[in-house]
Amino acid sequence: MNSYCVATYRCYDDKADFHKKAQSIAVGLTVGSWTDLPAAKQKEMEKHLGQVLSVDVTEPPGGGESAEGGTGRYADIRIAYPDANFSADIPALLVTVFGKLSMDGKIKLIDLHFSPSFMSRFAGPKYGIEGVRDLLGVHDRPLLMSIFKSVIGHDLDELTRQFYGQAAGGVDLIKDDEILFENPLTPIEKRVEACMEAARRAKAETGQQLLYAVNVTGPASKLADQAKRAIGAGANALLFNVLAYGFDTLRELSADPDIRVPIAAHPALAGALYPSPHYGIAASVLLGKLMRLAGADLVLFPSPYGSVVMPKEENMAIRHALVTDRLEADYGYRAPGDDGAVPVSPLRASFPVPSAGIHPGLVPWIVRDFGTDVVVNAGGGVHGHPMGAAAGGRAFRQAIDAVAAGIPLEEYGKSHAELGAAVERWGAKS
Amino acid sequence: MNSYCVATYRCYDDKADFHKKAQSIAVGLTVGSWTDLPAAKQKEMEKHLGQVLSVDVTEPPGGGESAEGGTGRYADIRIAYPDANFSADIPALLVTVFGKLSMDGKIKLIDLHFSPSFMSRFAGPKYGIEGVRDLLGVHDRPLLMSIFKSVIGHDLDELTRQFYGQAAGGVDLIKDDEILFENPLTPIEKRVEACMEAARRAKAETGQQLLYAVNVTGPASKLADQAKRAIGAGANALLFNVLAYGFDTLRELSADPDIRVPIAAHPALAGALYPSPHYGIAASVLLGKLMRLAGADLVLFPSPYGSVVMPKEENMAIRHALVTDRLEADYGYRAPGDDGAVPVSPLRASFPVPSAGIHPGLVPWIVRDFGTDVVVNAGGGVHGHPMGAAAGGRAFRQAIDAVAAGIPLEEYGKSHAELGAAVERWGAKS
Repeated sequence: MNSYCVATYRCYDDKADFHKKAQSIAVGLTVGSWTDLPAAKQKEMEKHLGQVLSVDVTEPPGGGESAEGGTGRYADIRIAYPDANFSADIPALLVTVFGKLSMDGKIKLIDLHFSPSFMSRFAGPKYGIEGVRDLLGVHDRPLLMSIFKSVIGHDLDELTRQFYGQAAGGVDLIKDDEILFENPLTPIEKRVEACMEAARRAKAETGQQLLYAVNVTGPASKLADQAKRAIGAGANALLFNVLAYGFDTLRELSADPDIRVPIAAHPALAGALYPSPHYGIAASVLLGKLMRLAGADLVLFPSPYGSVVMPKEENMAIRHALVTDRLEADYGYRAPGDDGAVPVSPLRASFPVPSAGIHPGLVPWIVRDFGTDVVVNAGGGVHGHPMGAAAGGRAFRQAIDAVAAGIPLEEYGKSHAELGAAVERWGAKS
Repeated sequence: MNSYCVATYRCYDDKADFHKKAQSIAVGLTVGSWTDLPAAKQKEMEKHLGQVLSVDVTEPPGGGESAEGGTGRYADIRIAYPDANFSADIPALLVTVFGKLSMDGKIKLIDLHFSPSFMSRFAGPKYGIEGVRDLLGVHDRPLLMSIFKSVIGHDLDELTRQFYGQAAGGVDLIKDDEILFENPLTPIEKRVEACMEAARRAKAETGQQLLYAVNVTGPASKLADQAKRAIGAGANALLFNVLAYGFDTLRELSADPDIRVPIAAHPALAGALYPSPHYGIAASVLLGKLMRLAGADLVLFPSPYGSVVMPKEENMAIRHALVTDRLEADYGYRAPGDDGAVPVSPLRASFPVPSAGIHPGLVPWIVRDFGTDVVVNAGGGVHGHPMGAAAGGRAFRQAIDAVAAGIPLEEYGKSHAELGAAVERWGAKS
């Protein structure tokens, strides 16, 4: 039986015959031509032919100009692409479904469904949510990640001091800044050694295990070597700017048997791709489905709460893509060859890490939206705490405890000084 | 003396204080904080501090709503980033200047200037325009490239027949379809052997040397091996879907001393990044400057003439980025540390390949816009010729000859049957 991956496009055009356009995509991006083929050849080529699954046209309510240019008339078009047409890797799939087509007018890739057969070629996250929790010994609450306040131009002593300040507050993960590259002041192996030593000192006081996600950077073919050197120096997690290197490079790092630490995917450059309504790739595909498929154990993305804002429904769509163990939400239609069974995801779940502008007062909102399988990620909310970074970490942990106990932050803050100070500084939205 | 790479952003906001925003970018994406640093620390950190070079605000003419949403108020902001802050590779530069920032509202990276010091770390195209011309022995006219009509589901015999048909028309280059991946019917080494044999047969008739750009695909870390196997089987050029793998992977392929063939960069997925006025990366940066820096010998992009349309000024900006030997157009301002000399590009020029919807009647326009250092790239314009693909190639060569001789295509077509038929079929815009 043939197997298909399914792409959903939103396509804006004031006048196009969208059904005709859908047919031309399904043929043009697969067998090239169809109606002029002899019947015998058609029979032979049918297994390579793209299939139009649905065309849902939305006519503009008024029929006039919308605020976005044009009338706002669009169609959501679903096309099934035979797995037989591409190799089982993300570059081949993306080039097939959105290579040339991305340049063909106002069109956005809004969903992408991987066939069970295609997915079976991917190992996905090596640790995932449960694996990361196992490493930290924390299973019952949201995790807490913090980031350095500033890194460029700082030497090892300064960086280690910052690291210790964060670690002392009881955070679970600390990540490098994504713009910290190989540099003479804090080269990766020395940085890992110094920071992991600070982590050990902090653990002696807090009892808290800690993952340090060190930024893997530089020439593409040397990334795995660099990661292994960092791990050799003691690194127990990696940070990776996935979109600067492509999804297959993440997959290779994640699948490497010698890289036995979780990988946190940074969304750097993602804003060049997801925010336009007319062009690009939806955040749920880019930072959700593809990151998980490629093996990210944790995925950072702009939260709907803070300074870098992504609409809440997009955040929820990313979350769903990262954590769901059932794939029915991708369906709503039957792909050719689909036997109707609801497949269970063969991939471990990735930890969602909504980021930017997070302070302790937002923890109730984060838990309400994401549940406990979330990483609360803070920079200014830790370092900007009136009593210092360690107190900032403690304020977040207290906020997490308060939410677990069902106690409003303002009330919990009365008996927990750090949280109280944070709520006074930033407010609380509980 | 410090050295800086310079990013120019177009930033839309109805109310923002753009000067303040520019300062916050220059500080936030470099040293992190500035005004709260002690004076001694500021002195130490100054070499890492981003510099605002200019902020040009364009207020909306009417002050009201524009057709694009918002008032249309925007600013072009130039920021200089110290080379000291990032390693000398494209991922590090892009993550620095547009990693986090890409997600911060309506902002597009519209230009990127590499410091001479940064550029000096790149070899650029191994062949470039002159090298490709040398390989083909053609120095005085636009080159002609053709592409397969359809590839998926075809076996070696069918593919070879198509190849020969194109080659027999006297084309200079034939490229794989970008959606042809490793597959059981036409695996890369067998495909190369069969097609290069067809190229030899055609050359015996036409006398025309020919480059066959075979598509390098699959796992990221195996691309170089695959390229070398293809070259071992006789391939004399490569096609590469750069944006599916990242610019550094192109750079590594291009810099590999064992890959001694030109590389043609395909723009697949580029439409997810360049067309929006509000988000993404300008085509001249994405398909121009970065492709050349990373070592593409030929760069395909949507032409302004045909079916997949890019505005003409964007095409011209790509062309300039690919071929200019002087970098003054990147300036218009003085970067800190810039001694005022106009640097000459240390990189070979890349061949511009405007593509999609090209027929012989467009050759005069292409030459008018691009000069003779251009590759005329045709698919339907070759295969759809009323007298067949070989005649299609000849029609293009005749059109190129006519333009060189300053003879209108309609006139030249009277004595050259293939061109005459093409002009009758598609018209001529001379």
